[in-house]
Amino acid sequence: MIDFEALFKVSYGLYIVSSGDNMKGNGFISNTVFQVTAEPPRFATCCNKNNFTNGLIEKYGLFSVSVLSQKTGPEVFGRFGYKSGKDLDKFEGMNIKYGETGVPIVMDNAVAILECKVLQKFDVGTHNLYVGELINAQILSETDEPMTYSYYRQVRKGYAAPNAPTYIDKSKLVKKTTPVKSKIYKCSACGFIYDENREGIKFSDLPENWKCPVCGSEKEYFIEV
Amino acid sequence: MIDFEALFKVSYGLYIVSSGDNMKGNGFISNTVFQVTAEPPRFATCCNKNNFTNGLIEKYGLFSVSVLSQKTGPEVFGRFGYKSGKDLDKFEGMNIKYGETGVPIVMDNAVAILECKVLQKFDVGTHNLYVGELINAQILSETDEPMTYSYYRQVRKGYAAPNAPTYIDKSKLVKKTTPVKSKIYKCSACGFIYDENREGIKFSDLPENWKCPVCGSEKEYFIEV
Repeated sequence: MIDFEALFKVSYGLYIVSSGDNMKGNGFISNTVFQVTAEPPRFATCCNKNNFTNGLIEKYGLFSVSVLSQKTGPEVFGRFGYKSGKDLDKFEGMNIKYGETGVPIVMDNAVAILECKVLQKFDVGTHNLYVGELINAQILSETDEPMTYSYYRQVRKGYAAPNAPTYIDKSKLVKKTTPVKSKIYKCSACGFIYDENREGIKFSDLPENWKCPVCGSEKEYFIEV
Repeated sequence: MIDFEALFKVSYGLYIVSSGDNMKGNGFISNTVFQVTAEPPRFATCCNKNNFTNGLIEKYGLFSVSVLSQKTGPEVFGRFGYKSGKDLDKFEGMNIKYGETGVPIVMDNAVAILECKVLQKFDVGTHNLYVGELINAQILSETDEPMTYSYYRQVRKGYAAPNAPTYIDKSKLVKKTTPVKSKIYKCSACGFIYDENREGIKFSDLPENWKCPVCGSEKEYFIEV
């Protein structure tokens, strides 16, 4: 038997994983970046086959990792987690550096960056798992804490995007609160659910400048469901 | 250029990954357990080829994961992280349950447990990466926080064991403190280094009942290096 709540006990960080070159580049929010060997240092990342960045990693054989700070704002998660590079240039207006291999690296909000050359690609179903040799690693901030997935969920009330390995259909989660008469609103940009019962504040009572905690969309983007 | 300090900005949890059956079982401390796909839910773990448990995962095609609580004591890290199942029965005296597949699961100190059936094995160098189908997932404690690698390092002053994917030879780390006249002691059980300069307390001034923060060995196990 699978209690999907148990899956939230596994710890992750939050990252922007990017690929491409100085002409064409893209990145996405990832929670699966991890070291797989120490000698030599190799890192793996998991990418949905439908992600625009997946095609770039395959083409360029490179990926960079920006370890996001705990201070990272919701607009970054909106842009890199809930929108596709097929539809917009996610790097527009961002501080992008090019690494030793030429791969683009998002410097905004990063406490550290890693740069990897792909050695192996494994098909694990809906996602590819890329293992890369670590070429370059730098700390950008000694003081800022890295954002963890647990912090993002518990403090920021964020959810994994549908393309993430950790996405959980909310119908699979056991309801632990007694339902009371309340309304549910959905962000039409990112799908974030505002449940009055869970939040304890009526949606209509939220201030007019309130924004979607996941993608930063205005209140008017919400529809009652 | 690789600044090895940057690698500490990547977030991990801490787990006991086990395999075997009710006659023969073993487990090891792992920081690399992560979900790789959501539909269906699949998890991966990384295991050093020299680990005794690696042979068991290969033989039984199963692994369990015990998500360790933040309260987990140093003796658990000593037993499961710095000792080998070749030399002792790590499960002796522990609360072991057998899952739906028959795989042993360490229940002590666990806030949640996962049970997986291996689907794929990838050779990534010194380690194997196993991808498994999630068969069973349970929460054991709603209130205890999971232990993170960051907490283990910063609060518990623990280090990755030499077989871990995240092991870093200390000579690779940039020294950021000015050296003063001080002594260095090494735990002969687990290799933990007590550096008087870093700790700010002379080793001889530590109380007699002080224990190695990593493996729980007595003070007498330490030798000056």
